[in-house]
Amino acid sequence: MITIYKNQNGSTQVVDRVDPDWLRPDSGVWVWVDLAAPTPEDSRILSDVFHFHELAIEDALAEIHHPKVESYGDYLYLILHGIDFKAREHAFKTQEIDFFLGRQYLVTFHGGTSRSIGRIAEICGRNERILGEGPATLFYRIVDTMVDNYRPEVDKLSDRLDALEKEIFSRPKSTLVRRILDFKRDIASLRRVIMPERDAIGRLARREFPQISESLSYRFRDVHDHLIRFADEAVYFQDRISSLLDAYLSNVSNQLNAVMKVLTIISTIFMPMTVLTGLYGMNVPLPHLPGGENAQFWWILAIMAGVTCAMLLFFRRRNWL
Amino acid sequence: MITIYKNQNGSTQVVDRVDPDWLRPDSGVWVWVDLAAPTPEDSRILSDVFHFHELAIEDALAEIHHPKVESYGDYLYLILHGIDFKAREHAFKTQEIDFFLGRQYLVTFHGGTSRSIGRIAEICGRNERILGEGPATLFYRIVDTMVDNYRPEVDKLSDRLDALEKEIFSRPKSTLVRRILDFKRDIASLRRVIMPERDAIGRLARREFPQISESLSYRFRDVHDHLIRFADEAVYFQDRISSLLDAYLSNVSNQLNAVMKVLTIISTIFMPMTVLTGLYGMNVPLPHLPGGENAQFWWILAIMAGVTCAMLLFFRRRNWL
Amino acid sequence: MITIYKNQNGSTQVVDRVDPDWLRPDSGVWVWVDLAAPTPEDSRILSDVFHFHELAIEDALAEIHHPKVESYGDYLYLILHGIDFKAREHAFKTQEIDFFLGRQYLVTFHGGTSRSIGRIAEICGRNERILGEGPATLFYRIVDTMVDNYRPEVDKLSDRLDALEKEIFSRPKSTLVRRILDFKRDIASLRRVIMPERDAIGRLARREFPQISESLSYRFRDVHDHLIRFADEAVYFQDRISSLLDAYLSNVSNQLNAVMKVLTIISTIFMPMTVLTGLYGMNVPLPHLPGGENAQFWWILAIMAGVTCAMLLFFRRRNWL
Amino acid sequence: MITIYKNQNGSTQVVDRVDPDWLRPDSGVWVWVDLAAPTPEDSRILSDVFHFHELAIEDALAEIHHPKVESYGDYLYLILHGIDFKAREHAFKTQEIDFFLGRQYLVTFHGGTSRSIGRIAEICGRNERILGEGPATLFYRIVDTMVDNYRPEVDKLSDRLDALEKEIFSRPKSTLVRRILDFKRDIASLRRVIMPERDAIGRLARREFPQISESLSYRFRDVHDHLIRFADEAVYFQDRISSLLDAYLSNVSNQLNAVMKVLTIISTIFMPMTVLTGLYGMNVPLPHLPGGENAQFWWILAIMAGVTCAMLLFFRRRNWL
Amino acid sequence: MITIYKNQNGSTQVVDRVDPDWLRPDSGVWVWVDLAAPTPEDSRILSDVFHFHELAIEDALAEIHHPKVESYGDYLYLILHGIDFKAREHAFKTQEIDFFLGRQYLVTFHGGTSRSIGRIAEICGRNERILGEGPATLFYRIVDTMVDNYRPEVDKLSDRLDALEKEIFSRPKSTLVRRILDFKRDIASLRRVIMPERDAIGRLARREFPQISESLSYRFRDVHDHLIRFADEAVYFQDRISSLLDAYLSNVSNQLNAVMKVLTIISTIFMPMTVLTGLYGMNVPLPHLPGGENAQFWWILAIMAGVTCAMLLFFRRRNWL
Repeated sequence: MITIYKNQNGSTQVVDRVDPDWLRPDSGVWVWVDLAAPTPEDSRILSDVFHFHELAIEDALAEIHHPKVESYGDYLYLILHGIDFKAREHAFKTQEIDFFLGRQYLVTFHGGTSRSIGRIAEICGRNERILGEGPATLFYRIVDTMVDNYRPEVDKLSDRLDALEKEIFSRPKSTLVRRILDFKRDIASLRRVIMPERDAIGRLARREFPQISESLSYRFRDVHDHLIRFADEAVYFQDRISSLLDAYLSNVSNQLNAVMKVLTIISTIFMPMTVLTGLYGMNVPLPHLPGGENAQFWWILAIMAGVTCAMLLFFRRRNWL
Repeated sequence: MITIYKNQNGSTQVVDRVDPDWLRPDSGVWVWVDLAAPTPEDSRILSDVFHFHELAIEDALAEIHHPKVESYGDYLYLILHGIDFKAREHAFKTQEIDFFLGRQYLVTFHGGTSRSIGRIAEICGRNERILGEGPATLFYRIVDTMVDNYRPEVDKLSDRLDALEKEIFSRPKSTLVRRILDFKRDIASLRRVIMPERDAIGRLARREFPQISESLSYRFRDVHDHLIRFADEAVYFQDRISSLLDAYLSNVSNQLNAVMKVLTIISTIFMPMTVLTGLYGMNVPLPHLPGGENAQFWWILAIMAGVTCAMLLFFRRRNWL
Repeated sequence: MITIYKNQNGSTQVVDRVDPDWLRPDSGVWVWVDLAAPTPEDSRILSDVFHFHELAIEDALAEIHHPKVESYGDYLYLILHGIDFKAREHAFKTQEIDFFLGRQYLVTFHGGTSRSIGRIAEICGRNERILGEGPATLFYRIVDTMVDNYRPEVDKLSDRLDALEKEIFSRPKSTLVRRILDFKRDIASLRRVIMPERDAIGRLARREFPQISESLSYRFRDVHDHLIRFADEAVYFQDRISSLLDAYLSNVSNQLNAVMKVLTIISTIFMPMTVLTGLYGMNVPLPHLPGGENAQFWWILAIMAGVTCAMLLFFRRRNWL
Repeated sequence: MITIYKNQNGSTQVVDRVDPDWLRPDSGVWVWVDLAAPTPEDSRILSDVFHFHELAIEDALAEIHHPKVESYGDYLYLILHGIDFKAREHAFKTQEIDFFLGRQYLVTFHGGTSRSIGRIAEICGRNERILGEGPATLFYRIVDTMVDNYRPEVDKLSDRLDALEKEIFSRPKSTLVRRILDFKRDIASLRRVIMPERDAIGRLARREFPQISESLSYRFRDVHDHLIRFADEAVYFQDRISSLLDAYLSNVSNQLNAVMKVLTIISTIFMPMTVLTGLYGMNVPLPHLPGGENAQFWWILAIMAGVTCAMLLFFRRRNWL
Repeated sequence: MITIYKNQNGSTQVVDRVDPDWLRPDSGVWVWVDLAAPTPEDSRILSDVFHFHELAIEDALAEIHHPKVESYGDYLYLILHGIDFKAREHAFKTQEIDFFLGRQYLVTFHGGTSRSIGRIAEICGRNERILGEGPATLFYRIVDTMVDNYRPEVDKLSDRLDALEKEIFSRPKSTLVRRILDFKRDIASLRRVIMPERDAIGRLARREFPQISESLSYRFRDVHDHLIRFADEAVYFQDRISSLLDAYLSNVSNQLNAVMKVLTIISTIFMPMTVLTGLYGMNVPLPHLPGGENAQFWWILAIMAGVTCAMLLFFRRRNWL
């Protein structure tokens, strides 16, 4: 679906086609073309009207790309990603948006409904002045909304990490490994989106491209700052998840230790008893044993109790109990 | 086998020798010389006709090299690799292709049949216009085809990684270590091809060499972009494989834990029973035991059942059952 | 709460509003505005009187940010952090202070009571000359006090690390893992404050901004130096904590070894004894055994003692005892 | 031992002293002075005739140094290493050669017999033209021979690594750890020679020094390329050796698992049997047991066989058998 | 204690105060002021006579600092460290020396007796010419002596590492972990001194400061070279120590394996025997057993021996014996 906003002398209209005359430097007109889940038909506007480079168009049509920014002289081509953390599927669903930013136009291209673009379109509908600020500022507004949408997703991840940590220390189960590794993957995929995005926005903030004015570069510096923090948090998450794996594995070792102690204590107590009962069960005269021929059962029980107590004392001194 | 394509005024002929006159700057002719599995005889064209630097020729004749790009003033010498993942042998078979790119010629040199070059030659056969674009564009087309061929190979690797992951979590066997480490090696060998290739193509994309025009540099930027993604995926694969090793090792520990718990439970239940049977088997009068001289068998069984239940309850409370 | 210090011709007054005239370059006046836990009303001075950039104001109002320095042409905007290590909560409570440093003013903005600013304000109260040195020097004094306050906090952390180390080697308990990992997190959060702070101050020390005079840059170089040392100590702490984890895990393994040795020694001694007592308890004539039909109990005990001694010797030779 | 080759007008003589006049820029003479295991007497030529910097002479006399290249204005001072892998001693014996390369002389200085220099000297003996190419080309020839000699040594290491890998997977023994760690050390020492060597030759290839002509720089680029590959292989070896350590340790864990399973299976089968025989051995009337007072031995054996089968089934279902 | 050497027209005197006139550029005099464990009184010369920057003086008075070099325009301020490895205390005692290097003076400031400065002072006493070379050369001589003193300390560390390695492989004890980790700390502290020292000297070698002449820069390049090697050795030590930890931990695992094998072998042999003796001890008629009612003891022993042999064969085939 194509939506075209034409802005002339500060007033905005939604039109249904782009007149190539508008794109002339002195036309006094600028347009925002939003291609949402475009048909091949719709996409033809990129080449026929705007004459974008075929490789940029190819990249836009192919859905899977890394965030990047590329200058084609007159216009910038950017790929940025919105994120949407689906905890159940252990994957950050990323929503790719392609931007073509020229002096007199902004073209946005995305597969489905984008929350950020929807939001900005809605604001523009309410407030004509927004579109009056020109394509670069509009572009900034979309990017800013997009990056602001990261916060709740990252917080969700952080919360789930806290929950996992609690569980590891309270109820370690062997299935937790899988969840830890799934988390590690989530975080890696988060980093793979944020890192190149941070670098792309950083280039806008450093004013590498003439399309970005100085006052706008301050704003992109702010967005860049947010992305630096997200990247930093992703690194921190990675640290934490590997600590959790350490904790889990050390827990497993400790459990093994505990199990082995139980076994050792039990064996050490009952084995001497077995020998003792065996001794008194031999078909052999026991002349000088405690109790001798008329061995008293109580004597035997007393010896057993003694051995048990000695063993328990020995283990307590070793800090096993 | 040498195949020589001569292009003059837009029309292409397959000829069987290169006239040194054609290589003069104003000849209006350009040639593509493809040396497939050349005999030493064939290879002599590199020195006799093209007068390439002896070191570049030496590199081309020696088959094992890293991807690289080198400028020899008038011409570029490049080594690039096609890949062909042989899962069974746990090795990326790489197919080295050497390129000599001059103003009026492209020389390709490769050991056997190259899929990419075969494909381009076939296209050229169908469409004369392709060769009319000049040697640098032809070179780009071959490289692009080559890098496009990476995708299915990398996807194959990714699929096998998924399969391995499933197996580790469902049926951990001690032979899996070997497969994990084999995988690690596959991925390392993939990285060793892609990383230098990415850097070599990156230098073309940044227009470090005058042989590459600006419009062509956009195209190489696109190829570079693909290689960045492959490199990125290789790093991601490495992360995953080391996670899988962690998972495998933690599984081994968990199994040990499980085995030890079984042993401990069994021992803890049967050892007291053994002592009990031993007690009643002693050649000693048991005056005041339950049952005394006329000990009832049922009493004994009841005590045994009691001990067993107590133990089971103890283990359940410890979360072992 | 707003406190405004006005300095004119070397004498200082506390006033209750800022006259925009004072901010003119030739006014001969400079002001220090300290906003401590300001109400929204108070904060309005940032935009209404000083006309700071809206993004800087937004950053100042939002409390959670990374240390950074940003130039807005006429003035610098800095975020720095005081630290306050709360051992019990395993967190460095960081106290963010925002600075706006212009030619004729310093605006400090912080959430609650800041020790460093409190201290400097008190010194200024006693010594009018301090404020006479101008806003940049005052800013330096606050930063210097702030960074000096890091030392006891970092030392506290170091002491607790020593205590933890002692405990790991003397009384390893399974709960120590959690404490080690908590420590790791403390240190990571310390680094996350110090690293960007070091970089921000480093930019002041290198005189990237005209607000910092050469003589002041020497002073910032000194502060930078302190921060480099803190960063270095944080890296060193991280090394130590990971060594402690290694030590702990190896201790767990050693304990397991020790437990298993006890079990093996006990089993190896008592199992042959059990068989021996079983042998003599069989309902089978023992014609040629030591003691034969009239087996002497002492013989049996002697054999048992012999087996035990042989076993103990065997284990001693293996270095188990 | 000093060997001096004097080259004038394309003809070479072996002379026994260097006339300082030859070193004048317009003398038309150049010399190659080879100092093999020189006496202190011999070494005096460095200072007395060539007037090299005292620090360079000191470095040459002291045998243990890292590969490096240093410019002393008129001449270059280089330290390079030949390698000789002694598998038995787990050490790369490196043979240091010092070079002084000036406009009209090459001085080589080495402790004993150097294979590379011996080879070049022999070639020079057969072919006078070689020395006619000047000192820089001669220097290149020596370096090239030296680096070519690395290949068989590195291949030897690679072969031994393959053998070790095979052994780890087929016959894991506890002594393998030591061999793995010895290997790790070998590889580290290989890297310590190759890395600085690569950087030193890289500086020659990039023509940082006027002593190296452009055509020679192509040749050094080729040597540099070889060293890059060796460095790359060393990194790859390191990866492999750490994978082998992982494999070894996981093998140890798997063995422990296997041992514990045997113990558990045996215990689980024989413990109930012991209780059973104990039961029937009690001095207690067994009125209602299978067989009762006249208990049939076959009944008992049948119960035992039943317990054994049940246990074996249980373990098979757990994948232990 | 202050010692002041005054050098004028090549002749040196020990004087007891510095005349500010000497510090004038055209005085023809230069002085070396050595402050060894100075009293606050002594230290006043830094500010009163030389007018050094207060921050540099503060740094000199405070003893704990990182090696660094700082330019204060006219003079350089350096902090360098002598090292003294105290094996028993597991710490590199570092001896800080502060240098102020100006055109006509060198001020050295150190806490106690410095071996390097003592040595140089002694040489100066014997040889007046040394001081005649000027302050920068004197400074170089002190630094060179200092760095030369590192060699025996680093070699001591290396020897102790060898000893530790031997011990780990011959007599692994659980207390070795602690020693390994202590070593790790020693090496980390060595690196923390050498790394910044190397960088500081590197800046002198690259002639970043006008105080260092070209001929002197060659000498500092040599010192820099030594420090690079020490840094390299420190990295190598770190690699080795982590290999040793790996070796130790794998040894612990192997020991556990060995212990478990002993337990399993013993249990597997004696458990069937126990059942056998139990069988013959049952109060049940054994009609068809080998030996039947008149069971021969020898039959039973033969069965036991058979079971034992079968078990031993089984374990030998599994490579346990």
